[in-house]
Amino acid sequence: MSKPFTNLKTNHDFPGLLIICEGIDGSGKSTQLHLLKTWLQQQEYDVFFTEWNSSQLVKKTTKIGKKKKLLTPTTFSLIHATDFADRLEHAIIPPLKAGMIVLADRYVFTAFSRDTVRGVNREWVRNLYNFAVRPDLAFYFRPTLETALERILLGRSELKYYEAGMDLGLSHDPLESFRLFQERIMKEYDLLVEEWGLQVIDSNKTIEEMQSEVRESVKPFLKTRPIRRSE
Amino acid sequence: MSKPFTNLKTNHDFPGLLIICEGIDGSGKSTQLHLLKTWLQQQEYDVFFTEWNSSQLVKKTTKIGKKKKLLTPTTFSLIHATDFADRLEHAIIPPLKAGMIVLADRYVFTAFSRDTVRGVNREWVRNLYNFAVRPDLAFYFRPTLETALERILLGRSELKYYEAGMDLGLSHDPLESFRLFQERIMKEYDLLVEEWGLQVIDSNKTIEEMQSEVRESVKPFLKTRPIRRSE
Repeated sequence: MSKPFTNLKTNHDFPGLLIICEGIDGSGKSTQLHLLKTWLQQQEYDVFFTEWNSSQLVKKTTKIGKKKKLLTPTTFSLIHATDFADRLEHAIIPPLKAGMIVLADRYVFTAFSRDTVRGVNREWVRNLYNFAVRPDLAFYFRPTLETALERILLGRSELKYYEAGMDLGLSHDPLESFRLFQERIMKEYDLLVEEWGLQVIDSNKTIEEMQSEVRESVKPFLKTRPIRRSE
Repeated sequence: MSKPFTNLKTNHDFPGLLIICEGIDGSGKSTQLHLLKTWLQQQEYDVFFTEWNSSQLVKKTTKIGKKKKLLTPTTFSLIHATDFADRLEHAIIPPLKAGMIVLADRYVFTAFSRDTVRGVNREWVRNLYNFAVRPDLAFYFRPTLETALERILLGRSELKYYEAGMDLGLSHDPLESFRLFQERIMKEYDLLVEEWGLQVIDSNKTIEEMQSEVRESVKPFLKTRPIRRSE
């Protein structure tokens, strides 16, 4: 039987390296993670990339649920946790065991911020993800709200129901709802920075400046960890 | 926004009545619950019936997962919790609010026993279901293991992989695996009896004797609770 409990509060002892990034949409986190990936691959490191809410196992369920708008915050939260558990076992732990570098675009902190804003109990959701692997490095890309909104809304025709946080009933206007929703999420992230030691990257800086900060933080791990490199 | 947190540790304040039954397969619990249902309906009570793992939302996921045998204990546990959260919001809380009697064939204690036997952390799974409504009455039907095995295996051609607990690697023989699996589950149930005050019904008794015990326990609630009756 597989040992199901790794622990979010304790450093893992896999040979690999787990780097995750967090931030609201428009924070530039995905761009930064892709740049980091390229940089690492250029150095012949084996890199594995994984994204939030992308497991095949639950994609269908989420789709049905969102369509019918029948998801309560708790159900919503549990679906995401199921997705995460599945990816953890099949897309995060195996590459870490194999000494690879795993890059995760969003991690449990996305659930901690979003689900809490949706009204789920703060402690409950933290306990829910207690089985997660503690990341070696967790970046939080923090833009000003205005910058993020501009970036997201640029060239977008409409906001989806859940994306805009319409289920929260903050406003009947999707745009205003979205703004209020993102603002609340950013407040939750700020709490998480303290609580989990996320490394804040000011994402009003240029892409190059941010990437340089990211790489500097990653370098020490590349020297001390027995990470696998392609022959 | 809906209040997502009812609490398993605190009595609910809905006008309805929540009666649940637990026990391994072959314990006779489903028969008892159906007899109770008939008896209540004969008295014109509005009864709503719900079963473990029956939400449309997650049926497909579970099916895919089981087929591929790719479920880890944690993922398995989370899928069941998602199913439960969905049923709680759509099939348990609404009838309770409407003053109906809800009968649940298996409840969170099924997860507490099964998931723990599969290796999930005891405390974690209890916290996972903390949002559940505390039942007014929880029956635990306890047969001897031999009786239960006889009843289950009677006229059955084969045991399914997960049903037999084959994922636990207890034995290569499905029958022996099933036996060991059920034995462990019964041990967990015994702990739950103490912890959650489940009412034990000795299911080596006759159907009539058991039903009589069940009805006697239900009667006081029918007198004191503002349960709805059909006109």
